[in-house]
Amino acid sequence: MSKIGAYISWLESFGKLDISKYGNDFLRTWDKDKDSIIAVQKLAQLCKELFYSNTSAKVFNSGVAVSIFRDKSTRTKYSYATAANNLGLEIELLDETKSQISHGETVIETANMLSFLTKVIGIRDDKFLGVGHTYQVEVTKAVDFGYKEGILAQRPTVINLQCDEDHPTQSLSDLSFLANHFHGLENLKGKKLVMSWAYSPSYGKPMSVPQGIIGLLPRFGVDVTLAYPEGYNLIPEIEKNAAVQAEKNGSQFQIVHDMKDAFKDADIVYPKSWASYDVMRQRTELLKKNDDKGLEELEKRTLADSRKYKDWTCTEDHMSLTRNALYMHCLPADITGVSCKEGEVQDTVFDKFRKETYTEASYKPFVITAMMLLGQYGVHTLDIIKMILERDQKIVQ
Amino acid sequence: MSKIGAYISWLESFGKLDISKYGNDFLRTWDKDKDSIIAVQKLAQLCKELFYSNTSAKVFNSGVAVSIFRDKSTRTKYSYATAANNLGLEIELLDETKSQISHGETVIETANMLSFLTKVIGIRDDKFLGVGHTYQVEVTKAVDFGYKEGILAQRPTVINLQCDEDHPTQSLSDLSFLANHFHGLENLKGKKLVMSWAYSPSYGKPMSVPQGIIGLLPRFGVDVTLAYPEGYNLIPEIEKNAAVQAEKNGSQFQIVHDMKDAFKDADIVYPKSWASYDVMRQRTELLKKNDDKGLEELEKRTLADSRKYKDWTCTEDHMSLTRNALYMHCLPADITGVSCKEGEVQDTVFDKFRKETYTEASYKPFVITAMMLLGQYGVHTLDIIKMILERDQKIVQ
Amino acid sequence: MSKIGAYISWLESFGKLDISKYGNDFLRTWDKDKDSIIAVQKLAQLCKELFYSNTSAKVFNSGVAVSIFRDKSTRTKYSYATAANNLGLEIELLDETKSQISHGETVIETANMLSFLTKVIGIRDDKFLGVGHTYQVEVTKAVDFGYKEGILAQRPTVINLQCDEDHPTQSLSDLSFLANHFHGLENLKGKKLVMSWAYSPSYGKPMSVPQGIIGLLPRFGVDVTLAYPEGYNLIPEIEKNAAVQAEKNGSQFQIVHDMKDAFKDADIVYPKSWASYDVMRQRTELLKKNDDKGLEELEKRTLADSRKYKDWTCTEDHMSLTRNALYMHCLPADITGVSCKEGEVQDTVFDKFRKETYTEASYKPFVITAMMLLGQYGVHTLDIIKMILERDQKIVQ
Repeated sequence: MSKIGAYISWLESFGKLDISKYGNDFLRTWDKDKDSIIAVQKLAQLCKELFYSNTSAKVFNSGVAVSIFRDKSTRTKYSYATAANNLGLEIELLDETKSQISHGETVIETANMLSFLTKVIGIRDDKFLGVGHTYQVEVTKAVDFGYKEGILAQRPTVINLQCDEDHPTQSLSDLSFLANHFHGLENLKGKKLVMSWAYSPSYGKPMSVPQGIIGLLPRFGVDVTLAYPEGYNLIPEIEKNAAVQAEKNGSQFQIVHDMKDAFKDADIVYPKSWASYDVMRQRTELLKKNDDKGLEELEKRTLADSRKYKDWTCTEDHMSLTRNALYMHCLPADITGVSCKEGEVQDTVFDKFRKETYTEASYKPFVITAMMLLGQYGVHTLDIIKMILERDQKIVQ
Repeated sequence: MSKIGAYISWLESFGKLDISKYGNDFLRTWDKDKDSIIAVQKLAQLCKELFYSNTSAKVFNSGVAVSIFRDKSTRTKYSYATAANNLGLEIELLDETKSQISHGETVIETANMLSFLTKVIGIRDDKFLGVGHTYQVEVTKAVDFGYKEGILAQRPTVINLQCDEDHPTQSLSDLSFLANHFHGLENLKGKKLVMSWAYSPSYGKPMSVPQGIIGLLPRFGVDVTLAYPEGYNLIPEIEKNAAVQAEKNGSQFQIVHDMKDAFKDADIVYPKSWASYDVMRQRTELLKKNDDKGLEELEKRTLADSRKYKDWTCTEDHMSLTRNALYMHCLPADITGVSCKEGEVQDTVFDKFRKETYTEASYKPFVITAMMLLGQYGVHTLDIIKMILERDQKIVQ
Repeated sequence: MSKIGAYISWLESFGKLDISKYGNDFLRTWDKDKDSIIAVQKLAQLCKELFYSNTSAKVFNSGVAVSIFRDKSTRTKYSYATAANNLGLEIELLDETKSQISHGETVIETANMLSFLTKVIGIRDDKFLGVGHTYQVEVTKAVDFGYKEGILAQRPTVINLQCDEDHPTQSLSDLSFLANHFHGLENLKGKKLVMSWAYSPSYGKPMSVPQGIIGLLPRFGVDVTLAYPEGYNLIPEIEKNAAVQAEKNGSQFQIVHDMKDAFKDADIVYPKSWASYDVMRQRTELLKKNDDKGLEELEKRTLADSRKYKDWTCTEDHMSLTRNALYMHCLPADITGVSCKEGEVQDTVFDKFRKETYTEASYKPFVITAMMLLGQYGVHTLDIIKMILERDQKIVQ
């Protein structure tokens, strides 16, 4: 009972994409050309549909997906584990109790020692500015060495599960969700999305989500407004790149410092807390010096400062300024009166969009599945998909 | 080489059971009608036989079984993991370092975030009175919501791996063991089983095992004597329910406060320590208030009190009062002179029944397997079993 | 597309080995006859080749491999997990937070409780002299009991992943690497290997690696020189056994106390730190008494003593004394100026042999695979291998 027939148009449009420059890994969306990005999004959508209709995507008979988490995680770990399982890989978990700033020798050796039977390496390392992405690049070089020297049977695919710069599995889940919500990637053109800082009583949330959003969505014609209180800027190069991408792709990118102003006529809002670039930079310096007292003081100072902006919260009033906007969040959100006293979003706003935010999250395992397939099969991905559709193996008897 | 032929009578008798009211989950035996209980027991027995004769029960090509342990566990974790593996599911472990008393928003979100590709959720949450069962019910409601809204591809089956009220995977293992030992469920009728409190130097053992036993066995005609020192009672509603069940099913249920009296003419004895309802209630209150000092005092007081009943221990003398009774224990037992100075059972008694208590434990992975199958396939379970027998796939080449 | 044709000569030579005395488990190389050892080595080589050429060795449809680590481990854990995965088994991890000196009752019960659906048990317990091997023997006896009594469906294979005496998965990886490097096991005859103590700033490295090497290689005709500063000897019985084995197998075994002398004309050098037998013995005694202060003092004293031998390090100068020797290490090595200030090996020496040491490590998952197959299939292993070659199932589509 082949499913090829039902997916003829999908196969045609996927076949038209040029994925020859995709490469082995997925570290940051801005390292990938647009066809490679679209390939992930389309493939994630397909994999989700196949799963929901009981068609197995298992392409590995055995094999291991290593996961390296240098920060606590439950949801991302689950997404990665289930993506692996979906393809037939088993998880080998490497929880590092504390984020290390380690380089060179250690990385090349460990990466190879954990790759003999490994198809994929997923890494979350988002705590320290200037560390996460650098570490992931080192891992890709380490396995390049091992594969070239014949030590490894295969070149494992490295996937960024969140670093200091980007959070591509999140931003691509968001893109997939939006494409679905607005019935097509092409319909995102001209939509106004507000990526806004929001107040939260917790400290030091990474910048990777907002950076991921402003790095990706302008490339798809979305008009992105980045809103934050003065001083809460993201990594300057990433903000600059967002403007460049908007310019190139005929969309608009602006930075404003008033949440209400930002929300006016928005089609989509994404209010979320983060620690500023400046705080993150200081934190990394203090950590390198093991200055615990300094770290404590920085936390106190930062929390006090953020309390000045408690009105940066997504209320019904804020929502009424929009064009009936869609509310987005990467979850978990800090909901006022529910998960904290005062937080990022009013409870009634969150409640109204529960189905939507949960659905937004539901794409992540399939985005990761898509990254695994493209990283492992490259230009042969289309053939593998045809094989999966052709055999139409059941997940559940 | 179909095995259908060898199991014709099993298939016939299973087919006569009405399992239309089984439902998705297994939380407490007293929520299930008798045919549903018998279905689990029969299926567990079959799954065990299939495993021991190298016939695979794998019905999932991929998929995940989430496990949430809010208490330390090695054996139950193993039983759950192997049950999942037996059916083709991979474990995704969620160890919560400390038992949280969390509700509402958090549960609905986390349960859905961890269910996108999940077929089964197993939960152990036995530490706090009034918390464990409540939490499990909340999880079932959360996944109901997710499935109804189309967020989840399937409704995961929730399985109680021990809560504050019941321990159904244990009591059903015990039932399966007894059915086997006495050559048929029907032969349990009229047997005298003593579920007795016993002394242990350790503190705060859950009440779920004795509660599970008195909640289940009277329904199968077993005459249950519950024995404990005055003040060591279980949850009153559960004791009452045991009497009601006995009444309904033509068996006897009594509570006595003398171990020797209880043992007289017993066919089966199950001597085991537990903390009383009163202590458990106080503990939960102190925990809610984070009253560490109060908790410490309660522990000291409770241990001192229990030391008054050191003669509540299963000795050869006690055993000689019985009708050559079968000794049962959920393991690990506190064995006098072996795992503690003075404990629940004399070493020579335990030694004599080592094979039996180990065999008793061996049913648990298959009871969980049965709950997974019935929760996922419902009234189609019989068809799935026929398919498993028909294909007779080997576990080991 | 059967691969039988390509492996005719392998099958013939494997078929000539007498593996009737192999047994169920693999605890120490010196408990095994030579044909059994050769069987592991040959099978590891084959399994590696099959994996690298995308032929699946999956022989289990489901089933669990339990791993018990009584010491921290990343690499061995990975090797064991991937070996299990390679054959179709899933890992059930049992991390014991602290090494316990537990016996009898506890072991027999736990071992059985964790074996109902278990095909393999891997144990690492290397911290305490007189404990690790003893514990592993107890586990084998426990599962013997369970299997004989019909409690267990199968007799799980116990594999030593490092104990106080031997580290067979390491020494057999080393043997496989050497056999490959020198184009045949038979070419090891007459080669001079120096197993040398080397300085490291860290404390208490186990003796199992050097003991494993001197226990195994003399049996294959390798002339082994064991070098260490006076007082840094290994377990006396194991040193004696090495001499006996050399005598029996026409090779030479000598102990010297000068690193430079040892290196002269060496074909292979294996410089590595370890704590002496004496220190290990004292440590075990202090641990048994829970004498934390004594342990601290022992550590201080030991570190101070070892600093006297900082010139026991593998420099370019040392290497120039050899016959262009091959450098070996079990990894991770303490590299001077890289992973520590002064360590076991000079950075330029290590760099030159990076490919070799990584390749040496790459055999371990396949050595463990081989031990699993031989332990489970015994004299039927050849038939299983033929089946694997015949079907030539792909690992990756």
